[in-house]
Amino acid sequence: MWRDLLPIGRDRDSGGYHRHAWTGADAECRAWFRAQAGTRGLTLETDRNGNQWAWLGDPHGTDAVVTGSHLDSVPDGGAFDGPLGVVSSFAALDELRGRGAAFTKPLAIVNFVDEEGARFGLACVGSRLTAGQLTREKAYELEDADGVSLPHAMERAGLDPAAIGPDPERLARVGAFVELHIEQGRALDRTGHRVGVASAIWPHGRWRFDFRGEANHAGTTRLADRRDPMLGYAETVLAARREAELAGALATFGKVSVQPGGVNAIPSLVRGWLDSRAADQDTLDTMVAAIERAARERAERDGVGLTVVRESFTPVVEFGHALRDELTRILGGAPVLPTGAGHDAGILSASVPTAMLFVRNPTGVSHSPAESAAEDDCVAGVHALADVLEALACG
Amino acid sequence: MWRDLLPIGRDRDSGGYHRHAWTGADAECRAWFRAQAGTRGLTLETDRNGNQWAWLGDPHGTDAVVTGSHLDSVPDGGAFDGPLGVVSSFAALDELRGRGAAFTKPLAIVNFVDEEGARFGLACVGSRLTAGQLTREKAYELEDADGVSLPHAMERAGLDPAAIGPDPERLARVGAFVELHIEQGRALDRTGHRVGVASAIWPHGRWRFDFRGEANHAGTTRLADRRDPMLGYAETVLAARREAELAGALATFGKVSVQPGGVNAIPSLVRGWLDSRAADQDTLDTMVAAIERAARERAERDGVGLTVVRESFTPVVEFGHALRDELTRILGGAPVLPTGAGHDAGILSASVPTAMLFVRNPTGVSHSPAESAAEDDCVAGVHALADVLEALACG
Repeated sequence: MWRDLLPIGRDRDSGGYHRHAWTGADAECRAWFRAQAGTRGLTLETDRNGNQWAWLGDPHGTDAVVTGSHLDSVPDGGAFDGPLGVVSSFAALDELRGRGAAFTKPLAIVNFVDEEGARFGLACVGSRLTAGQLTREKAYELEDADGVSLPHAMERAGLDPAAIGPDPERLARVGAFVELHIEQGRALDRTGHRVGVASAIWPHGRWRFDFRGEANHAGTTRLADRRDPMLGYAETVLAARREAELAGALATFGKVSVQPGGVNAIPSLVRGWLDSRAADQDTLDTMVAAIERAARERAERDGVGLTVVRESFTPVVEFGHALRDELTRILGGAPVLPTGAGHDAGILSASVPTAMLFVRNPTGVSHSPAESAAEDDCVAGVHALADVLEALACG
Repeated sequence: MWRDLLPIGRDRDSGGYHRHAWTGADAECRAWFRAQAGTRGLTLETDRNGNQWAWLGDPHGTDAVVTGSHLDSVPDGGAFDGPLGVVSSFAALDELRGRGAAFTKPLAIVNFVDEEGARFGLACVGSRLTAGQLTREKAYELEDADGVSLPHAMERAGLDPAAIGPDPERLARVGAFVELHIEQGRALDRTGHRVGVASAIWPHGRWRFDFRGEANHAGTTRLADRRDPMLGYAETVLAARREAELAGALATFGKVSVQPGGVNAIPSLVRGWLDSRAADQDTLDTMVAAIERAARERAERDGVGLTVVRESFTPVVEFGHALRDELTRILGGAPVLPTGAGHDAGILSASVPTAMLFVRNPTGVSHSPAESAAEDDCVAGVHALADVLEALACG
């Protein structure tokens, strides 16, 4: 099962993955999901927002137990972020059938579409739409780097973009959602446990900084005559790191675009994206405000215009204690730990009792071809998920 | 003539030009050149490196007088940088014919290919190859952003890339080369003259800074665990400005590329291009060394690898005093001024007596859609060029 999925969207040079929403690689991943559901006699449903659901039992029953994750990736991402949760879900179902488990509730395995937001710049689009945390209007405004809109991309992939939007009836039928995910840090590794339970997701967001100056010849324009927006960008990158250190938080510029982008042309526009996260809302607000202040001071000094747009934001998610404590009990005292990474589970937790399991990541590396997990730890993850699903769905 | 050229490769939104070597827009410009030569009964020749020559008189004669410039552009460039020189050459020929000038030497108008280097990263490819300042081996290694090699692009455009290389016989037949160009600064404007004569081109070059770190998840990787190459890039951008101010010179980062380039991924590679120029070699060397030192210090601090590659370099060009003084005399005491911009004339000056005329630029803006020259000044440029060509070719 894992072997079939591995080559899809893989870069031959880096070994990293390019599985962006509604691309050819994504379609192959979705076909793989359909085949896995078919092999197991599960009923496949694609919901109005393009998320795939594989049902054991009645898709229209209530108090369903749902597990799963996502199959898309960041650019040049790792093999585990997302797929480990989906593969483990199918494997856990196989294990439960092997144990002869008697399901008393409907069970579904879900593949949420466009979790990473690598193509349209907004993360968790599939779960956000379903949970009503992204309106159809806002979704229609999303565009990729080539100017292809989200509805157009969905249409090309055979979906009906007129149908997208909140799906409260669907969520009302879900009694619990559990997402298994590779840990994206080394906290579990430090505890010596293979599997842990999530306590919370840090508040996090993306801010776009647009520095607008004046294009001119790099070889002839006196420094005094320049309005160079690259300087403001550079100052802001360094300010972000400094402020994150002061706040004990995280701030990163991982994407920048420059116009016109010629070696011998002073740019007219430098656009940088800030990813920022902290343990609590106050710390995050203070840090982002300080970064923006530094950006604005430098932009003014250089005669450069600055616009800052918050492109996405997810408040702190504290997973419900009841389900979290139940998982810890089922797993015999697994460690409980927070994460800085957003997940579909974080989106769903506002509507549905939700919990997460983390599988140990020995290097902590994620969003990179070097992301890895030991086979024994993955197997332990499948056992843990099977135990959890059995307790929740066969009660 | 000017009107036919204007729409080619023009961006409808910005009004800027995208005429990169061996693209469709470039082919249209070359067809325009062919048509202009044809209309005037000139003999069109495309040399082994793709430069176009329109001959009045014997293309194989000696002591030829050659004028012209280039038709390609930087990304989103202006209408004048390059085309003004080519259009003025044809217009000056028309004027001389109107005057009934009797040519005693062969005259050629030339369109040098790929002057800006916007596509393959090296400026003046056409004139460098012809003058033997770029070997065929090095030219074969040039690639555009899509991985298309220069020989492949030439082949697609109908040229034979096996033929490229130095062309000393051709240059030996050239007695003088004069390039007219819009000024890329405001020095002429400050003198009150419409037309000036070039004294020298500052030494200048391009350096590529590759900062290599480790891709990782922006939301979960502790600052202490990061090897983020964006920080070194940002530090270097600011160092370049600082060192240029100290040196009274120019240093610019106008192009950067990031891998993987995801908002929520710490980059594995940030590649920035430095364009740097100074009045003399020592100042330039000292400045670039200081920038590189700042880059290296920061990279080491962040656990990031750094490679610096000098992608191109042009030493100071002091135009020959004999021809320069002759032009100043012909034009009745036009001002003589240096420039920071590289030109095909700078390349040719090592092989052939070479001079340049500058036409006034009221804003100094260049490499931008806002580049402009007044019609009166352009007409004055044509008159001046006609006077120069008459004196040189009808003597």
